[in-house]
Amino acid sequence: MQSTVQHQMMGYDRSSTMFSPDGRLLQAEYAKKSVRRAATSLGIVCKDGVVLLAHKIVFDKLMIPGFSSEKIFQVDDHIGASATGFLMDARMLIERAQLIAQQHTVTFDAPIDVLSIVKDIANMKQAYTQFGGARPFGVSFLFGGVDDAGSQLFVTDVTGIYFGYKATAIGEHELPIKEFFEKKYKDNLSLDQGIKLGIEAFKKVMDKEFDASKIEGAIVDAKTRTFRRLDKGEIQ
Amino acid sequence: MQSTVQHQMMGYDRSSTMFSPDGRLLQAEYAKKSVRRAATSLGIVCKDGVVLLAHKIVFDKLMIPGFSSEKIFQVDDHIGASATGFLMDARMLIERAQLIAQQHTVTFDAPIDVLSIVKDIANMKQAYTQFGGARPFGVSFLFGGVDDAGSQLFVTDVTGIYFGYKATAIGEHELPIKEFFEKKYKDNLSLDQGIKLGIEAFKKVMDKEFDASKIEGAIVDAKTRTFRRLDKGEIQ
Amino acid sequence: MQSTVQHQMMGYDRSSTMFSPDGRLLQAEYAKKSVRRAATSLGIVCKDGVVLLAHKIVFDKLMIPGFSSEKIFQVDDHIGASATGFLMDARMLIERAQLIAQQHTVTFDAPIDVLSIVKDIANMKQAYTQFGGARPFGVSFLFGGVDDAGSQLFVTDVTGIYFGYKATAIGEHELPIKEFFEKKYKDNLSLDQGIKLGIEAFKKVMDKEFDASKIEGAIVDAKTRTFRRLDKGEIQ
Amino acid sequence: MQSTVQHQMMGYDRSSTMFSPDGRLLQAEYAKKSVRRAATSLGIVCKDGVVLLAHKIVFDKLMIPGFSSEKIFQVDDHIGASATGFLMDARMLIERAQLIAQQHTVTFDAPIDVLSIVKDIANMKQAYTQFGGARPFGVSFLFGGVDDAGSQLFVTDVTGIYFGYKATAIGEHELPIKEFFEKKYKDNLSLDQGIKLGIEAFKKVMDKEFDASKIEGAIVDAKTRTFRRLDKGEIQ
Amino acid sequence: MQSTVQHQMMGYDRSSTMFSPDGRLLQAEYAKKSVRRAATSLGIVCKDGVVLLAHKIVFDKLMIPGFSSEKIFQVDDHIGASATGFLMDARMLIERAQLIAQQHTVTFDAPIDVLSIVKDIANMKQAYTQFGGARPFGVSFLFGGVDDAGSQLFVTDVTGIYFGYKATAIGEHELPIKEFFEKKYKDNLSLDQGIKLGIEAFKKVMDKEFDASKIEGAIVDAKTRTFRRLDKGEIQ
Amino acid sequence: MQSTVQHQMMGYDRSSTMFSPDGRLLQAEYAKKSVRRAATSLGIVCKDGVVLLAHKIVFDKLMIPGFSSEKIFQVDDHIGASATGFLMDARMLIERAQLIAQQHTVTFDAPIDVLSIVKDIANMKQAYTQFGGARPFGVSFLFGGVDDAGSQLFVTDVTGIYFGYKATAIGEHELPIKEFFEKKYKDNLSLDQGIKLGIEAFKKVMDKEFDASKIEGAIVDAKTRTFRRLDKGEIQ
Amino acid sequence: MQSTVQHQMMGYDRSSTMFSPDGRLLQAEYAKKSVRRAATSLGIVCKDGVVLLAHKIVFDKLMIPGFSSEKIFQVDDHIGASATGFLMDARMLIERAQLIAQQHTVTFDAPIDVLSIVKDIANMKQAYTQFGGARPFGVSFLFGGVDDAGSQLFVTDVTGIYFGYKATAIGEHELPIKEFFEKKYKDNLSLDQGIKLGIEAFKKVMDKEFDASKIEGAIVDAKTRTFRRLDKGEIQ
Repeated sequence: MQSTVQHQMMGYDRSSTMFSPDGRLLQAEYAKKSVRRAATSLGIVCKDGVVLLAHKIVFDKLMIPGFSSEKIFQVDDHIGASATGFLMDARMLIERAQLIAQQHTVTFDAPIDVLSIVKDIANMKQAYTQFGGARPFGVSFLFGGVDDAGSQLFVTDVTGIYFGYKATAIGEHELPIKEFFEKKYKDNLSLDQGIKLGIEAFKKVMDKEFDASKIEGAIVDAKTRTFRRLDKGEIQ
Repeated sequence: MQSTVQHQMMGYDRSSTMFSPDGRLLQAEYAKKSVRRAATSLGIVCKDGVVLLAHKIVFDKLMIPGFSSEKIFQVDDHIGASATGFLMDARMLIERAQLIAQQHTVTFDAPIDVLSIVKDIANMKQAYTQFGGARPFGVSFLFGGVDDAGSQLFVTDVTGIYFGYKATAIGEHELPIKEFFEKKYKDNLSLDQGIKLGIEAFKKVMDKEFDASKIEGAIVDAKTRTFRRLDKGEIQ
Repeated sequence: MQSTVQHQMMGYDRSSTMFSPDGRLLQAEYAKKSVRRAATSLGIVCKDGVVLLAHKIVFDKLMIPGFSSEKIFQVDDHIGASATGFLMDARMLIERAQLIAQQHTVTFDAPIDVLSIVKDIANMKQAYTQFGGARPFGVSFLFGGVDDAGSQLFVTDVTGIYFGYKATAIGEHELPIKEFFEKKYKDNLSLDQGIKLGIEAFKKVMDKEFDASKIEGAIVDAKTRTFRRLDKGEIQ
Repeated sequence: MQSTVQHQMMGYDRSSTMFSPDGRLLQAEYAKKSVRRAATSLGIVCKDGVVLLAHKIVFDKLMIPGFSSEKIFQVDDHIGASATGFLMDARMLIERAQLIAQQHTVTFDAPIDVLSIVKDIANMKQAYTQFGGARPFGVSFLFGGVDDAGSQLFVTDVTGIYFGYKATAIGEHELPIKEFFEKKYKDNLSLDQGIKLGIEAFKKVMDKEFDASKIEGAIVDAKTRTFRRLDKGEIQ
Repeated sequence: MQSTVQHQMMGYDRSSTMFSPDGRLLQAEYAKKSVRRAATSLGIVCKDGVVLLAHKIVFDKLMIPGFSSEKIFQVDDHIGASATGFLMDARMLIERAQLIAQQHTVTFDAPIDVLSIVKDIANMKQAYTQFGGARPFGVSFLFGGVDDAGSQLFVTDVTGIYFGYKATAIGEHELPIKEFFEKKYKDNLSLDQGIKLGIEAFKKVMDKEFDASKIEGAIVDAKTRTFRRLDKGEIQ
Repeated sequence: MQSTVQHQMMGYDRSSTMFSPDGRLLQAEYAKKSVRRAATSLGIVCKDGVVLLAHKIVFDKLMIPGFSSEKIFQVDDHIGASATGFLMDARMLIERAQLIAQQHTVTFDAPIDVLSIVKDIANMKQAYTQFGGARPFGVSFLFGGVDDAGSQLFVTDVTGIYFGYKATAIGEHELPIKEFFEKKYKDNLSLDQGIKLGIEAFKKVMDKEFDASKIEGAIVDAKTRTFRRLDKGEIQ
Repeated sequence: MQSTVQHQMMGYDRSSTMFSPDGRLLQAEYAKKSVRRAATSLGIVCKDGVVLLAHKIVFDKLMIPGFSSEKIFQVDDHIGASATGFLMDARMLIERAQLIAQQHTVTFDAPIDVLSIVKDIANMKQAYTQFGGARPFGVSFLFGGVDDAGSQLFVTDVTGIYFGYKATAIGEHELPIKEFFEKKYKDNLSLDQGIKLGIEAFKKVMDKEFDASKIEGAIVDAKTRTFRRLDKGEIQ
């Protein structure tokens, strides 16, 4: 059995178009690391909607939040997303998601369902792990939305797999926050309780580094089926 | 005669477009390993339909099964498939299979036969073992379906070969389950007996690791020619 | 004069687009080895048709022969083929041959002659030994058929050369079976005698490994000009 | 953990289409260095508009400023930009921005908003960090403009991320000028005060190397929503 | 001055798109070697037509000559060709020549002249010595034909140069046969004398290895301007 | 900090599509050297037009000047250019400039302005520093012309940057001639005084190597707005 | 300063798309060597036309000169060319030149001028020194022709530069023949005197190797503006 270092020396990790001798896709695994190194996003399904919260690492005093590359995006009236990883990659994929949602509305005169958006983005990501000439996308998403199937939360990873969750996180604090949720999450949380649970999760894992002003958030309300960004007050 | 390690040192395994000096396709062989490492799927032909069962390794308590990247897919009313290997690759191929099935129905006003779907997917896989610029697909399938030729079960491997079986398995437990089936499989099993035989196979080879809640399943009923997912109760 | 190993060290064998310093095409030679390693096919021209027989190495008890990747294919009513090498490559080329045969029938309202099919497949194979971006096809064929020129048997090798034969073999037992045929073959064999001669050849070279249940076969009947698969009984 | 030098030795930094084993994009990081090495640009949002100032390193006595590759560009009536990095790359992107602005005016009979221009340029930049066959753009921009959302200042970096700022700088003196602004910047500066603050910033960080004749500048006036280059007198 | 081995070590011989430091095209030179290693073809201009003779190395007792990859081809009614080198490459080029000849006949209602065919094939060959993505053609031809300019014999080499000859040879025995012809060839030979001279040449250079049954031949008759294959009797 | 030699060893300078770790474009820097090694061109803006002078290194006694690859080109009636570097590259770009100028005249019924030509050529040059598959252009230009903005002189370098000048030089003697001009150049020179100043510059820096017969020259007259080549007498 | 050998070791000479660190194009320089190694061509402008003479190295006794790859080509009624270097490359470019000349005649009902042909061929050659995927053309030409500008002689080198000459040579004896012409050439030579001067030049530099039968020649007559090949008698 050869070690990863040997596989690196022999170049199995230089291209998306290559399997390593043990059947792994090393470029895709490296892209996952770019997500593991990035600031955390989390999402929580509540009885009356979905909560998305994101932690920002880049932060200058003279920066204007609402007009900078965001981590939380509105995809459609009823769908939001939070990105962790390379934000320029996130924006490309989100613009695609927005377009697909609009086209669906125009074509069928009805809002797109959340899972269709998730599958389309996952397909784009898969293609970039198989074909040469480009690198995989270095970003994971939490998609939160409300449709006829109810309030929903999905993760799409860098390879093009997706999972539905009741509550989860992506990024550097993924594992401790998931453990936290496995203990504390309950069905039938209200949106306010959901926001509070999310902030608690960040506080728990970041301890002294926690800074509420670095958290951005949004909810999708189940009743109105509308996306709304949280203001500073709501988060604190 | 040179060893595999020598062939690796000399780079015969870096591209789908190269034969090794002994006439092997090493990238395709590596892709097969990604299937051998992945959680097992099995299928059983019964007198009144086909059974597909799949074991999932990824599993979080807050994950929502029906809304995550699945291992078992519905291809058409009368055809299902279970994937083992890279699930993002599986989804790409299954979406193609679904489209081909739909087009057939629209064009000929009759459901497509199972073997045509199998051949089309096998052809796609072959192409990715011969042309440069992309890697082979890292996924094998069990296709189970019912058409005028009766209940059928096929395996398509990563290189584009396919085989018809009465009962078989793909993935990490492939060999012991095949041995188990060679001893225990009988013609004229009912679907219920088939499900039971499959669960027994998993129990036998996984021993203490067996966890019924990690098994997903589906059947294609020979009488109605319809695909139906099994619920937790039926599996346990 | 440099050795083959030196040429391998210097990379002359990494691409179809390169000659070695002594004017050889090493990728094409490696592809030939994939045929030499594969289970044998043989063909025999008889006075009343052509016999094709193939030995299968892969064999599971629960496998269903007629529904698995075959070694013997029907190309058209009056033409069959037996493949040795990578069977996924075989299927791609045979599907092309089938299409070309159909198009000829539709266009000219007459069946295509065997040699035209042979030349077309040989041309496809040649192209893949000259152009980059893909590997050569790793498969040889025996084409057997009946047209106005009578019963005919052709071999197409991996490079795109073809030869007409009265009786020959391809694959791991190619040489001893050819020697056997040079001694035993006679003109004016009946189809039954041809089948018997072929089975004898397999028995002779495989000795104890011979297993009639692993042989598949087909004939093209000269009178009816039709392809017909042999059943187990006829082979045994 | 491997060092950057090791990753360089192993070639992870030779192409935009590769992640390093720790999930970084090294070509994009190198492109950022071309900005860090280049002469500084700064921008300041004032109550009655936006100020852009740029320091030029190349300077010949017989050069004619208005007719040379500029660092400050007019994108549209109401939008200006200052570039730091490779000026030939800047001009390509600015010509695209000018075209997009014109097309918007022609299509909608209204000026484009500043953020739309920023996002389009950021998208172009992202693509060049993901696809092979070309290098990333080696230039950052300050976009300053006035639209219905008020006076605005954006930075787009080489990777395709953008940020809104009240006052900031890019290039070799980026960090000290940002610190200077964090102390000295106040809301409700007049344009004249803004220009003065910018010049002070340059003086502070460049000390004896400061040379007013090497500074070029422009403002976008909030009332008239028009871009205007500053003449020598205004700067001194 | 560097040696060829040094140039090989440094990779100047890996692609058709590269000159070596001394201005040579090494891939083209290697392709020439594939001709020098191959069985000899010869041609002789006679007063009443042209003779083409070819020696075959591959020969099985059960092979059927007229239905195997030939070395001598009919290009048009009045033009034949004999190939030495890779016969699969020969067939590709000859099929092109046949097509061009047919198109000429259809378009101008007159047979194409021999030199036009020769130039077209030479151009194809040149292109493959200059462009990347494919290897040069590894085959030389003798084109023999009769048109208004009389009986003619041309050689096209692998690089795309052609020469007119009265009598010449290509392949492993090229040099001794050319010497033989320089001594023995006379103008105004009859076709029968030409065939005899050619057979003598083969006998002379091959000595004990000479085997008349391995020689194939054809003539183009000057009076009828028609290509005709020689039968065994005529050759012996 | 790594040295340039280290960066060369590691291959950062092999392609236009790569940044070095310190953010430099080494292929573009090498292309600049091909200009620095080439014979000098100079240009001078006068009150009644623009002067272009160029020194030729290649010179045979039997060469016919007006019919050889020139260093000074007429782009349009009112625009000339002098090239330094690879003259075959110069001619490609000048033919493009000539075409663009003609198309402008035909489309708008008015001569193109000098800056538009300069920007178009600069854009072409930029593209070749960013995209793979071709090398950058190895040539700099002096564009001299007269339009409604008056008499103008521009330099375009190999990377796609341009500068306006009153008087400047490109090529091996660039620096000493620029110094010379900074001392001696005055506004309001007549064209005759301009030619004299340029010849003096060449004499000064080339000393004994100066040879008036190796200088070619042209003016664009401000009054008539026409390009005119200088004859030998005017230069001496 | 690095040596050429160091640049070769580091691979700066492997592709047309790369500059060496000192700004040279090594592939183009190697292509020039293929001309320097090839047999010489010379041209002489006379008062009543232009003379082209070429020395052939390849020569077999049974070769038929007028029907072999020539070194001297007729481009149009009034234009000839002599090639030195790879003759297969020459033929490709000359066929292009012939086509361009014909198209001009058809379109404008007047013969093309010599310089236009020269520029077109030079442009083709330039492109092959800048773009990847093919090697530069390994051939130089002497174009001799007569048009309204009189009798003219041009050289196009492998890089795409051209020069007008009164008399010059290309190939292995280029330098001594140019020296010879600088001493002996006079204006107002008759065509007969020109042929004689050219033969003398060959005799002088080749000494004992001179063989009049290996010289081919042609003239373009100024009065009739027609190309005519010289016969053996005229040359001797």
